[in-house]
Amino acid sequence: MPAELNAEQRKALEDEIKVMGDEIRKLKTEKADPAVIKERVNKMLEKKKELGGGEEKPGKFVLKTGKGTRDYGPAQSALRNSVLQNVVETFNKYGAETIDTPVFELRDVLMGKYGEEGGKLVYDLQDQGGELLSLRYDLTVPFARYLAMNKITNITRYQIAKVYRRDQPVMSRGRYREFYQCDFDIAGQYDLMLPEAECLGIVNELLTKLEIGEFFINLNHRLILEGMFAVSGISPKDFKTICSSVDKLDKTPWAEVEEEMIKEKFLTKEQTSKLGELVRFRELNSNLNNLELLEKMSALPELGQNEKFKKGAEELKVLIGYLEVDGVTTVRYEPSLARGLDYYTGAIYEAVAPKALEGTAAEKAEDTAGQPVGVGSVAAGGRYDGLVNMFDSKLKVPCCGVSFGIERLFAIMEARQKSAVRTTQTEVYVASAQKNMVIERKKLLRTLRAAGIKSEMPLKANPKLLTQFQYAEERRIPLVVLIGERELQEGIVKLRNVVSREEKDVPLDSLVSTIRDNLAAL
Amino acid sequence: MPAELNAEQRKALEDEIKVMGDEIRKLKTEKADPAVIKERVNKMLEKKKELGGGEEKPGKFVLKTGKGTRDYGPAQSALRNSVLQNVVETFNKYGAETIDTPVFELRDVLMGKYGEEGGKLVYDLQDQGGELLSLRYDLTVPFARYLAMNKITNITRYQIAKVYRRDQPVMSRGRYREFYQCDFDIAGQYDLMLPEAECLGIVNELLTKLEIGEFFINLNHRLILEGMFAVSGISPKDFKTICSSVDKLDKTPWAEVEEEMIKEKFLTKEQTSKLGELVRFRELNSNLNNLELLEKMSALPELGQNEKFKKGAEELKVLIGYLEVDGVTTVRYEPSLARGLDYYTGAIYEAVAPKALEGTAAEKAEDTAGQPVGVGSVAAGGRYDGLVNMFDSKLKVPCCGVSFGIERLFAIMEARQKSAVRTTQTEVYVASAQKNMVIERKKLLRTLRAAGIKSEMPLKANPKLLTQFQYAEERRIPLVVLIGERELQEGIVKLRNVVSREEKDVPLDSLVSTIRDNLAAL
Repeated sequence: MPAELNAEQRKALEDEIKVMGDEIRKLKTEKADPAVIKERVNKMLEKKKELGGGEEKPGKFVLKTGKGTRDYGPAQSALRNSVLQNVVETFNKYGAETIDTPVFELRDVLMGKYGEEGGKLVYDLQDQGGELLSLRYDLTVPFARYLAMNKITNITRYQIAKVYRRDQPVMSRGRYREFYQCDFDIAGQYDLMLPEAECLGIVNELLTKLEIGEFFINLNHRLILEGMFAVSGISPKDFKTICSSVDKLDKTPWAEVEEEMIKEKFLTKEQTSKLGELVRFRELNSNLNNLELLEKMSALPELGQNEKFKKGAEELKVLIGYLEVDGVTTVRYEPSLARGLDYYTGAIYEAVAPKALEGTAAEKAEDTAGQPVGVGSVAAGGRYDGLVNMFDSKLKVPCCGVSFGIERLFAIMEARQKSAVRTTQTEVYVASAQKNMVIERKKLLRTLRAAGIKSEMPLKANPKLLTQFQYAEERRIPLVVLIGERELQEGIVKLRNVVSREEKDVPLDSLVSTIRDNLAAL
Repeated sequence: MPAELNAEQRKALEDEIKVMGDEIRKLKTEKADPAVIKERVNKMLEKKKELGGGEEKPGKFVLKTGKGTRDYGPAQSALRNSVLQNVVETFNKYGAETIDTPVFELRDVLMGKYGEEGGKLVYDLQDQGGELLSLRYDLTVPFARYLAMNKITNITRYQIAKVYRRDQPVMSRGRYREFYQCDFDIAGQYDLMLPEAECLGIVNELLTKLEIGEFFINLNHRLILEGMFAVSGISPKDFKTICSSVDKLDKTPWAEVEEEMIKEKFLTKEQTSKLGELVRFRELNSNLNNLELLEKMSALPELGQNEKFKKGAEELKVLIGYLEVDGVTTVRYEPSLARGLDYYTGAIYEAVAPKALEGTAAEKAEDTAGQPVGVGSVAAGGRYDGLVNMFDSKLKVPCCGVSFGIERLFAIMEARQKSAVRTTQTEVYVASAQKNMVIERKKLLRTLRAAGIKSEMPLKANPKLLTQFQYAEERRIPLVVLIGERELQEGIVKLRNVVSREEKDVPLDSLVSTIRDNLAAL
């Protein structure tokens, strides 16, 4: 609490601060030594404190959240929580633990993984003395760091937390700089494809549970891509860039993708023709099922002899066999899936729900680049056996996992919901018909809460009856207990069903059980 | 994927990078223009990328979390989640909504509130172009910013999220730089003390539910403090500093506090004597209850005539009356409670649980300053009518709330728990007695999961029976379904109770219902 200044003292101080501010701006323009600027700023802040900080100047703040971020109000929070509850229940059903890591990591830990490219998108914390820190960019690197640091070779864990990317935000498309990620991973030395089957089982079960409409899980394998590229005469050093072209096939016609590979990536027509036959194998053989596709590709003279392809195909066959036993019928072998391959070492998969927004108001929405909002994956993952090793060369921890596009799922659920999720869980609203009944309302509220019934009352001494009914209706509180003097004398209250507006007299001593019956019948 | 380099090329690149690194370190020592340094760093990173980034140098990372932060492993996460579930249930029972705000705010928004003093503890994000951002320091300022920005004059909300303070961490005492806050606030124009009664009701109910042992909620009022100070002849400009002395009375004898006020804060002996009689009123009249204390203080000739005291005392009397109706018996009027007063405008309260760690291993733990770990408040709050106004001078939103010391509650629950919280929720483990039964285990797992039973199986083709039993015991999975070839042919499996180690044969077609019965009986 600053000492109280008179008007004159205040004016003098304000002038002094103004001069200091001008000086600092000048120093900044001149790119003066930051340490000098900082010292001046601190001195100015000292003075400002004498003035009483911001307290004397209400309303001068820019009231906004940081670029690319937003608040979640009660309605959005309620929806998100209901989705996340489903997610967590599914993870629990599959035996997962959860962990939590700090929002920032040592900058070196993050940079080791992302390199300069990803680094550009990382939020750095200011160097305030001590370590250099950055906000986490995803949950995978912190997970790998956690495993390496604690020498954990064996864990099935999920983590739901926000991550940070200094990307160009596209709000209309749901691309923010702060957003949730939701990862499930199985780390440990297990037998071939059993962890992958668990991951795909979770994707299948959760997307089914969320009722987002028809969905598919595309499946491929790094070694299959490497094999296809090899027999097409493409150099391993072009793996990443050609993957990025091939991966566009889900949205772009082959002719365009081929043109890009020839003109921008300098493949020959011979190479692209060969590659096209292979990566479009599902498209060109749409009558075949997953196993038949793999068999037919394996029968191709050159590809079938490629060791990498053979290994990849054999592994996927095992996985496909397991998925049949598990009753997972939404998985589709797709040789053109080629995502995340600076990272994945084995099977890769990605779930898409092309019709999730069909018939909703958001269906036709386009982002600022004219792309439909509704397109994109809702879950993606794969096997990555090298990451933990990067942090500890002695530690081999094979991992496979899946990351849900939880922000996209939130958006889909929001668009598809028939009625808004309730923002509170209140079951009973305790209202009064006359004035001066605060104590009576409080007594009743105490009884209800003691019985475990979620209940509230207006925090006003004399609320209007109509206002109380409106509140209950707007909040969709199912029941109102209405107390009146005369009724209380008779030992009864009115119980009102907010939707039907039916009212009935209920004796006080059976009120709790009557309410429970009513709630159970909702 | 970097191009593959031969050993010679690699060596040449590494040398080049080394030279660049030396140059950069030199520039840094010379405090060169940061833009120049940055450019050099970027060039070096380019080179490093050619080398293949960090991938070629595994194990070179410092594997730690940022200073003052930590990971929560599965056991800690499970405990935290179980505490938070209780917290959220209680908030829901009282009709609260929830909101979520970004982890960082515009720096000006934070600084307006904390001024330079708090500002020293704020984590700033690096200026990477665009706005200046800082990590949130608490949840109250973001809440006030949210209300002002959206012109919300009316909301009862809770928010549970992590906040960030560049404080000197004292890990042993649970003081971290990243920690959870858990706030419940009622914003809106309501009638006198009804919101405060709700806040105290929540504190009382939640602390009771968490079974942390005996606790008290100390209660005071800003106007009572101002009145006591006034009649003791203490200037309003000394309000804050004298409050900080008075507030020590819960841990420090009066003589020491008085000495501090005389020697360091230049009060006269006359002033401190007068003040001592008042702020120690509960201590000196320990036979009186809350209302009697207030009555007796009101009867003091000078104090009883002070307008501020009178108003504060009248308000607390109303609140104490409500608490009696609500059955909240843990509240204790304590005129020496004097915390958070650069902030609070009316009633203030703070819950303490002095015996929470009694009889636990943590009871005798001391922090690095030799203070007992177990001391401190587990919840604190009050009325703050001015905060939203600070962000929007036209918006008057009276607020009152409570913030739970949730990290301290985690620590208390951890110390008091009889057995560790389970880290998974798995109900059934599907094990096999012989080799090569993966498919059979998977089939059974599918059946159980389809029935909603949380279940897992070993992700190995041929796990050892003993290993499987050990896993189930360690994880405290209550049931194991054991399948064997012979039994399967007969259409039965063994169901094993992991605790009692009892086994019984169960026909496959009644397995789900038998498991449900067993789980229900646990």
